[in-house]
Amino acid sequence: MSEKYRGLSPAEFFHRNKEIAGFSNPSRALYQTVRELVENSLDATETHGILPYIDVEVRLHEDRPEWVTLRVADNGIGIPAHEIPNVFGRVFYGSKYVVRQTRGVFGLGVKMAVLYAQMTTGKPIYVKSSTRDSDVVGEYLLYIDISRNIPHVQKMRIKKKNKNWHGTIVRLTLEGAWLQSKKRIEDYIRRTALISPYATIRYRSPDGELLFERVSKELPEPPQIGKYHPKGVDIEILKDLIRRSNNNDMTLAGFLEKYFEGVGEKIAQEFLTWAGFQPDTKVKELKLADLEKLATAMKNFPKWRRPRPLTLSPLGPELLKKGVKSILKPEFATAVIRPPSSYGGHAFIVEAAIAYGGEIPPQDNVLLLRFANKMPLLYDEGVDVSRKIVDSIDWSIYKIKFPAPVAVVTHVCSTKIPFKGVGKEAIADVPELEHELEIAIRDVARRLRIYLSKLEKMYEVKRKEVTIRKYMGEVSSSLAYVLNMDPNSISSLLEELLKKELEKKEVTVNA
Amino acid sequence: MSEKYRGLSPAEFFHRNKEIAGFSNPSRALYQTVRELVENSLDATETHGILPYIDVEVRLHEDRPEWVTLRVADNGIGIPAHEIPNVFGRVFYGSKYVVRQTRGVFGLGVKMAVLYAQMTTGKPIYVKSSTRDSDVVGEYLLYIDISRNIPHVQKMRIKKKNKNWHGTIVRLTLEGAWLQSKKRIEDYIRRTALISPYATIRYRSPDGELLFERVSKELPEPPQIGKYHPKGVDIEILKDLIRRSNNNDMTLAGFLEKYFEGVGEKIAQEFLTWAGFQPDTKVKELKLADLEKLATAMKNFPKWRRPRPLTLSPLGPELLKKGVKSILKPEFATAVIRPPSSYGGHAFIVEAAIAYGGEIPPQDNVLLLRFANKMPLLYDEGVDVSRKIVDSIDWSIYKIKFPAPVAVVTHVCSTKIPFKGVGKEAIADVPELEHELEIAIRDVARRLRIYLSKLEKMYEVKRKEVTIRKYMGEVSSSLAYVLNMDPNSISSLLEELLKKELEKKEVTVNA
Repeated sequence: MSEKYRGLSPAEFFHRNKEIAGFSNPSRALYQTVRELVENSLDATETHGILPYIDVEVRLHEDRPEWVTLRVADNGIGIPAHEIPNVFGRVFYGSKYVVRQTRGVFGLGVKMAVLYAQMTTGKPIYVKSSTRDSDVVGEYLLYIDISRNIPHVQKMRIKKKNKNWHGTIVRLTLEGAWLQSKKRIEDYIRRTALISPYATIRYRSPDGELLFERVSKELPEPPQIGKYHPKGVDIEILKDLIRRSNNNDMTLAGFLEKYFEGVGEKIAQEFLTWAGFQPDTKVKELKLADLEKLATAMKNFPKWRRPRPLTLSPLGPELLKKGVKSILKPEFATAVIRPPSSYGGHAFIVEAAIAYGGEIPPQDNVLLLRFANKMPLLYDEGVDVSRKIVDSIDWSIYKIKFPAPVAVVTHVCSTKIPFKGVGKEAIADVPELEHELEIAIRDVARRLRIYLSKLEKMYEVKRKEVTIRKYMGEVSSSLAYVLNMDPNSISSLLEELLKKELEKKEVTVNA
Repeated sequence: MSEKYRGLSPAEFFHRNKEIAGFSNPSRALYQTVRELVENSLDATETHGILPYIDVEVRLHEDRPEWVTLRVADNGIGIPAHEIPNVFGRVFYGSKYVVRQTRGVFGLGVKMAVLYAQMTTGKPIYVKSSTRDSDVVGEYLLYIDISRNIPHVQKMRIKKKNKNWHGTIVRLTLEGAWLQSKKRIEDYIRRTALISPYATIRYRSPDGELLFERVSKELPEPPQIGKYHPKGVDIEILKDLIRRSNNNDMTLAGFLEKYFEGVGEKIAQEFLTWAGFQPDTKVKELKLADLEKLATAMKNFPKWRRPRPLTLSPLGPELLKKGVKSILKPEFATAVIRPPSSYGGHAFIVEAAIAYGGEIPPQDNVLLLRFANKMPLLYDEGVDVSRKIVDSIDWSIYKIKFPAPVAVVTHVCSTKIPFKGVGKEAIADVPELEHELEIAIRDVARRLRIYLSKLEKMYEVKRKEVTIRKYMGEVSSSLAYVLNMDPNSISSLLEELLKKELEKKEVTVNA
């Protein structure tokens, strides 16, 4: 029998392979759906300078206990009414295919949620949205036409806005194993509150209500949309940019200056001379072999400026520490931010925090909380670069003896997180990233060691004080007898002496 | 600034996110390219009853040491000339979107290799192929037009066949870090030879030639193309089948019998009564709510037959043992196959082997060799279900004391392997699968314990024999003196006695 060949639409592909996007079963699918919606809401708010207010509600269906209705509402920038169908109903469609740090990047997550809902309960997704500058609100009920990968609108209504509302409300009903997923979902919400301490998140579920009020009104500088870095280029990117430039007179020098980050007139000239190109060559006339030579040279030129971090939006150590303290409630916490770095032309910044004691339960290993572009990563820790580093460290040199109540928080911000899968659960061990993460983790670990050393010394002094006091009465009366003095005055003299000694040894311990 | 929205073609998506398909850097990309091509070759041969002969060649470019040319040739069924462009130049296109065990499933791997080649070296892929029943050979040089996800043919030639050749030859040139990847690639080829002991694989590289001659001419029964199992259905699959049936008169009963595995007239009637449907309802008249009810009932009906394993093609314990012995060269090896099972309507079969001693180096942990649909899995072991099971077993109960020279081989065959990513490196922990794997591993481990126990006893007997012989001379002469007999005749009497005793205790140890 001969083989039959056919093509699949992207929606068909992910319908068949939903586990690849994290939708492997009703428990994981519910968790993943919460995640995708919350992350879209955060992207729609803080990325645009809005203090996030996010309302998440999980409701179980009365007649069908395996059906879960999830509603997420935000105060974000909203989606233009005419874009709503594609944004929710077409796989590989979105606004985030640019050089900028966002949680979403694939244009896939929310579509997977829609797919999962319609394949398990047959229900369409409900979306209501309005943008800041619009005077209408769009409401849709829609499916995905899987075989054609296009939205199928069941109902829509565009109406005048009667108040100044902007944001997005999404509601869908899917098969979800609530009992098996509720712990993960709560963990996820809690960790989201940790990494977004300027967000207020209200979470209502069959188990009750949790309210995470923002602990700071200070929003990190929102990320800007950047250009490609010349080091991150390949032949196909060059071809695409030349085609899109749509300008027959564009010279090589002009092309480099226009489309690449940190490339001014001077450095463009210097590079082209170095690489053996004429700066006034028309890009439209470049042959494939020229493009190959150009791409290789761009990768290898040693003098490009580093990618600038304006496309990134880290938390900063103060906010990160606030978040850690408010969620983990430790006795000690500290955080660092590393200077911007890059891999393959993608800018990145690493932040790390360490927390010790307090409400952190003692464990046989370091409790690791991983974050990427402000998203908590809960699954697949075993293959994540942060776990690899934490496990490679000999913690005894930092005065940690397990079981110990110690948590490490890592946060990677990048225009391109090297995720190991579209489910966005683990970060690959890119060498540049690994290097920065290790420095950051060791840095906060060192600070913890200083804290623990001081604590040790303080206890030692206290212990000595107790011992001395124990014998002070006896010593006083013996001295009083020998010197024929009043025991009380001797006692207070000794007390003064002790105080002076203790003051010398006083240790300041800041948590 | 308002957001700009756009769509991506599947090729654009994977060009941007190539690490998701395993193409994260030049070293991993070279490994992944070898893998994709070899797996396509194996699918084209043994899946169709042909004893595979596969020729793999890695060549470094003289002027450009970072350029690698890879050529893979097979004696498979070939690709019809008119299908070659789409098969190599269109993401999500192929012949493997059916219910059947194959290595390839995504219609993505070889396209990623083409993409990676053209973005790093700008070179097109060369393909030459002919099918068994064709009298022509097709030759192509082609690229992928990334933004449109269509093949771009640079050159083609269709010529008459002058000999009876069929098969496929593929050649491409990509940037690949040979030094960093050569160990993995050799490992991969070696393990492929283990799991396909009926294949001859010739591997030529800058390091020399390796030839793995087939150790068996016995080919496992090729897998057949099956139908969906009624338990594996969802609303969207039902919609799609009804649409494709294109028959306005088809009844529910007829629909179930035609499109689902193991559903005859009787069981269809029984199910429909159980689920509250009229058997002669026309499927075209079913409403969405009916489809939802039907899908739920199909999932929950307790009396479907198990999926039949005809779609699968396991190795069988004999061949698996042969493969293990020829590649690992152990002192002891044994293998089992479990009965067919299923999860979510997908048939699967688990096989496992254990090997001990010989050329296996002693290690602090069990050496795990994972296979899925006859593909070696080399990366991401830390999150694979087999590793999880192996780590959860207390090996001391099987008489293993680490460091020990012990290797466990697991092989999962399924029409749908629950891979954790499109790079196909780790299997998710689906409960049904985990259960079968654990039984299989414990089964071979028990057999190893029996072998090790026998070995222990044999050594014990040997030790006793040595002790007895040590004193036999003295005992003989003492007895001879007391009984006034010839010491030699006593000695031979004692020798006979010892032999009889030893025979009683003789232990047969079969490796």
